[in-house]
Amino acid sequence: MRVGIDIGGMTIKAGLVDDRYQIVDKKTIKTNSETESAEQIIQRMAALIKELLKENHVEEEKCESVGIACPGTVDPAQGTVVYSNNIRWENVPILAWLKEQLDIPMYLANDADAAALGETLGGAAKGRKNAILLTLGTGVGGGVIMDGRIFLGPLRGGCEPGHMVIERNGRLCSCGRRGCLEMYASASALMKSAREKAEKYPGSQMNILSGNKPEAIDGRIIFEAEKQKDEAAVQVVSEYEKDLATGIANLINIFRPEVVILGGGVSAQKNYLTDQLQKLVVKECFGGELGEIPPIVTSELGNDAGMIGAAFLD
Amino acid sequence: MRVGIDIGGMTIKAGLVDDRYQIVDKKTIKTNSETESAEQIIQRMAALIKELLKENHVEEEKCESVGIACPGTVDPAQGTVVYSNNIRWENVPILAWLKEQLDIPMYLANDADAAALGETLGGAAKGRKNAILLTLGTGVGGGVIMDGRIFLGPLRGGCEPGHMVIERNGRLCSCGRRGCLEMYASASALMKSAREKAEKYPGSQMNILSGNKPEAIDGRIIFEAEKQKDEAAVQVVSEYEKDLATGIANLINIFRPEVVILGGGVSAQKNYLTDQLQKLVVKECFGGELGEIPPIVTSELGNDAGMIGAAFLD
Repeated sequence: MRVGIDIGGMTIKAGLVDDRYQIVDKKTIKTNSETESAEQIIQRMAALIKELLKENHVEEEKCESVGIACPGTVDPAQGTVVYSNNIRWENVPILAWLKEQLDIPMYLANDADAAALGETLGGAAKGRKNAILLTLGTGVGGGVIMDGRIFLGPLRGGCEPGHMVIERNGRLCSCGRRGCLEMYASASALMKSAREKAEKYPGSQMNILSGNKPEAIDGRIIFEAEKQKDEAAVQVVSEYEKDLATGIANLINIFRPEVVILGGGVSAQKNYLTDQLQKLVVKECFGGELGEIPPIVTSELGNDAGMIGAAFLD
Repeated sequence: MRVGIDIGGMTIKAGLVDDRYQIVDKKTIKTNSETESAEQIIQRMAALIKELLKENHVEEEKCESVGIACPGTVDPAQGTVVYSNNIRWENVPILAWLKEQLDIPMYLANDADAAALGETLGGAAKGRKNAILLTLGTGVGGGVIMDGRIFLGPLRGGCEPGHMVIERNGRLCSCGRRGCLEMYASASALMKSAREKAEKYPGSQMNILSGNKPEAIDGRIIFEAEKQKDEAAVQVVSEYEKDLATGIANLINIFRPEVVILGGGVSAQKNYLTDQLQKLVVKECFGGELGEIPPIVTSELGNDAGMIGAAFLD
């Protein structure tokens, strides 16, 4: 048995994971990063792990490992969260603090990296040793698995494909660059452009389906309107897919992975989205049909991917 | 002793390389890909290798390996040139054909990949196991070394960072995409934008230094004019550096290499270019100063890098 922890902006989830990558039990606490110090949060996290093990009658020495998936930049070798914007942590020695409470081997990874690992172990890329995961949410998280391991270059900072510029001098990203993939391919970017478009086209199905509440226009409504051939929604989705395909093709031209996995809210569109992306990407990859084009699939583990991957870090 | 072959559009170079990564002897023949079949060229290549060994009194069985660096898409595992635009080859089983003539272990790599390996063995990244080389020439070749080995994803097609889009809907690239890094950061792109700019600014130093021959405006003249604070040249160089830095930062955000090496004609500017790029890149890398930013350096082996790297393929 292993424990995988997924730290999010709102909640911290702990999963007890068995050797077949199944979550046996799961507990959740609030993150409270706005009111509590990192030390306090980590204290509660240790208690959460102990509780999870106790309730499932797993002794500490029988727990093979605890893995932590954390948003932002982490230093897995040092066991330190270098910087996490979501939870406002900077240089937090999370593993050292947890080890004061628990005598179990512990590991740390970026959350998207852990999710990518989880999908290759027990999810959409099961049995594959080389995969890229892009999580399309508030931002674009990215995790790359090569030879069965999380791909991290030698220097601190992590692999951040979401912060690859696809538009020189483009939209200003929270990272400080202009034109990052995240500014075009995230779920937030999709919603922003849909809301802008809906304002220009008052008769759009997006306005009707959202009861004329722009803030209620979400991915589901956008794709629903697009399927009804609503002109404004068709434009929004088509541009979104083109930009996402540009980012995916960039990554295929670099990593040539066996599979590209999409996670996050937008991936609920499954084949409807990936079939279209696959068509666009074939035309964009270097060498075209002379190279090999990986399949684009959607996440199978969803929000559990990070916990499952974290449990199998080493 | 080992032999490294570098196949170019105009010439094929063969180098006899010792264990300290030094070229002991070198022979060159014309490629003649417009008039000869791949089989004929490979026949001459085998003769070239035999001649090089004979003249240096190295018996075939004493030659540890022959490595081939070839432009375009190669399949190292199959020993096949999948597609090379420069020399018009498609699906050429180069290693199988060479093995009919020579009983020496043989290996194949893309030319930029081999050059990157060469630089890590005996050049600008000597002693480093993780480096990216970008050769700024007609196009932008790219080679990535991770853990001391050429980085190639699992699927056929190669790692082609020059064909990463940095401008959605940008300039049309020969690969079929729009906005590839190559269309902004190659030496050709620099010269093209300088010639266009010089035409608009007849009084530019670039026109004076080139004797009013736009086709004579090359990298040397552009940087010379820029150093003289010629307004047109300053604009051209500044935009070029910004685009190149965008590409480099994209790659740092993905690979976090220990060092980034620039090769090709433009790299003759050495520190004058890299100092400026370093300043731009620091601001562009994810996590900024909280991450680690690799040094940007220029090639030390120049045109020999491919031969040296090829000799040490395995």
